[in-house]
Amino acid sequence: MRKLLLAAALLSLTAGGASAGTYSLQSAFGKNLPILGPAADRFAAEVDTLTGGKIAFKHYGAGELSPPFEILDNVGAGAIDAGWSYAGYAAGKAPAAALFGSIPFGPDAIKYVSWVLHGGGLQLWREIYAPFNVVPMPCGVIISEAGGWYTKEIKSPEDLKGLKIRIGGLGGKVLSKLGANPMSLPAGEISTSLETGRLDATELSFPMIDRLLGLDKVAKHYYFPGWHQPSGFIELYVNKDKWNGWSDAERTAVETVCSDIDLWTIGTAVAGQQEALDAFRADGVTVERFPDSVIEALRKATAEVYAENEAADPMFRKVLESYRAFSKAYDQYQALNRL
Amino acid sequence: MRKLLLAAALLSLTAGGASAGTYSLQSAFGKNLPILGPAADRFAAEVDTLTGGKIAFKHYGAGELSPPFEILDNVGAGAIDAGWSYAGYAAGKAPAAALFGSIPFGPDAIKYVSWVLHGGGLQLWREIYAPFNVVPMPCGVIISEAGGWYTKEIKSPEDLKGLKIRIGGLGGKVLSKLGANPMSLPAGEISTSLETGRLDATELSFPMIDRLLGLDKVAKHYYFPGWHQPSGFIELYVNKDKWNGWSDAERTAVETVCSDIDLWTIGTAVAGQQEALDAFRADGVTVERFPDSVIEALRKATAEVYAENEAADPMFRKVLESYRAFSKAYDQYQALNRL
Repeated sequence: MRKLLLAAALLSLTAGGASAGTYSLQSAFGKNLPILGPAADRFAAEVDTLTGGKIAFKHYGAGELSPPFEILDNVGAGAIDAGWSYAGYAAGKAPAAALFGSIPFGPDAIKYVSWVLHGGGLQLWREIYAPFNVVPMPCGVIISEAGGWYTKEIKSPEDLKGLKIRIGGLGGKVLSKLGANPMSLPAGEISTSLETGRLDATELSFPMIDRLLGLDKVAKHYYFPGWHQPSGFIELYVNKDKWNGWSDAERTAVETVCSDIDLWTIGTAVAGQQEALDAFRADGVTVERFPDSVIEALRKATAEVYAENEAADPMFRKVLESYRAFSKAYDQYQALNRL
Repeated sequence: MRKLLLAAALLSLTAGGASAGTYSLQSAFGKNLPILGPAADRFAAEVDTLTGGKIAFKHYGAGELSPPFEILDNVGAGAIDAGWSYAGYAAGKAPAAALFGSIPFGPDAIKYVSWVLHGGGLQLWREIYAPFNVVPMPCGVIISEAGGWYTKEIKSPEDLKGLKIRIGGLGGKVLSKLGANPMSLPAGEISTSLETGRLDATELSFPMIDRLLGLDKVAKHYYFPGWHQPSGFIELYVNKDKWNGWSDAERTAVETVCSDIDLWTIGTAVAGQQEALDAFRADGVTVERFPDSVIEALRKATAEVYAENEAADPMFRKVLESYRAFSKAYDQYQALNRL
């Protein structure tokens, strides 16, 4: 760990920390990914404009200064100024962080943003991250992902038994309950693994991004809904000492721009999926929903995973209780207004 | 008209236009209204912070410098710098503007924002307002309204016949098709009119705001969904010459803050309705959905009203076609991902 931090610090000095007011922003995502890459560029440009160049973020693509899972520690230590990541990656260090990456069978994008910004979620998120010496906030929204790519048709919950599926986090725990074997695997190995039978299925992202990996060539069943991630956040976290050193106006600029990025990411993504789906269909892929029996089995297993996590971790329970209270009021009004 | 403009100009000079960099913002809404009032204050404060005081809006409540329906003309003439209003109020001058206030049986909040900011809606909105010498943008979102207060139970579409209902715009035209009599009436007269039988029903806003008028004392049936306004925008428009005189950074500040206000208004409103609904129920009000037969009759009548407006006004057709194209792709992905 010390070695990594040192390496990151050296890289930061040579690559990005040259002038006062220039801050390194290490992304967990590739710069070339649709939406995720441009969102970071848009963020940096708008903050630059609004602060008159006083806060100029330099956007580093995946792995340039730090591997994705080490960004949190590196930003906390001050070797990197800010991170652009996915809160699920911090779940190994703080289980409740997973709930700020996505909530399986949880909120859609707007309910998620509303709970975090208005229902007390952000305060809990900051409480979870405080020991890491960083200040987090939502700064981009990932709309509902796909449920996953399968090489075999799934007709009932029994068909999940024994399947080797690339999926992590809470979603992986849920699939275990139904007898599947969740596995970790770098994105670059997915395609070959599906072809050789090392994998039977994989979860990745939404269609626009899944398309980049050419999974339609090696798996012909593309299932929805993305029950494990009905929506997700891109998180921005800033080294706490840097954050506290900024003026009110500078912090307001960052937070206001993040609101813009939240809307921008949702809006860019919602209609952009259709073209990818059409391309998959043209390539012989079946694009469809899981059978209701599968969705219900997943929902039941998700409730079991939540109960276990709540029993094991008070913070996990506290976050989930906050979300559920917000959700209840929200759902009642939505039900009255459904068209 | 000329008299009004002059009066407004004088008021503006004495009240708000004293120092360079101070701009008058005339709201169409009362400063005391929940969400609508505070949103304008939040907007002004954030723009002030982000521009280092270079753009300081002074927020005037309903009627202080101009009556609501005259704000557009007054801002265009430069007597007032900016307006904070509802695009439906401009429909008398430009019918297609109604579609930027709300789209009956149309989008929920996030679909509406996404279409406007990413699907070409904003360009059309600016095209419609260009002859008025103002630059409009969404700057606040109104989540789904209530369907309305009724003194009588509505069991079938036939029960709407002959009812005197306070409702304007496209919603009023739709109710006419079903034999109701839509009427205009100032908000202050609604309660008494319902009590005396001059009115049988009224539409106003969502529960948090409806509560201020005490309608639960005089009408015991509160119906949903708000089919006439599944979501709506608060619009900000700025005098075009003023807008063009600002720097890129200043315009970016205003637009970025409007994104923040869009999210803030949605988030503040979504869970806040529950308390008002509970209070109504405690007061003996029946809170429920219209019967399906009524919703379907309204949907059919809405399609007829759209067809008539599209035939009469090419811009109305152009806007609706843009929305429908966006909607189609959006709905397909939503259907795949429904939980």
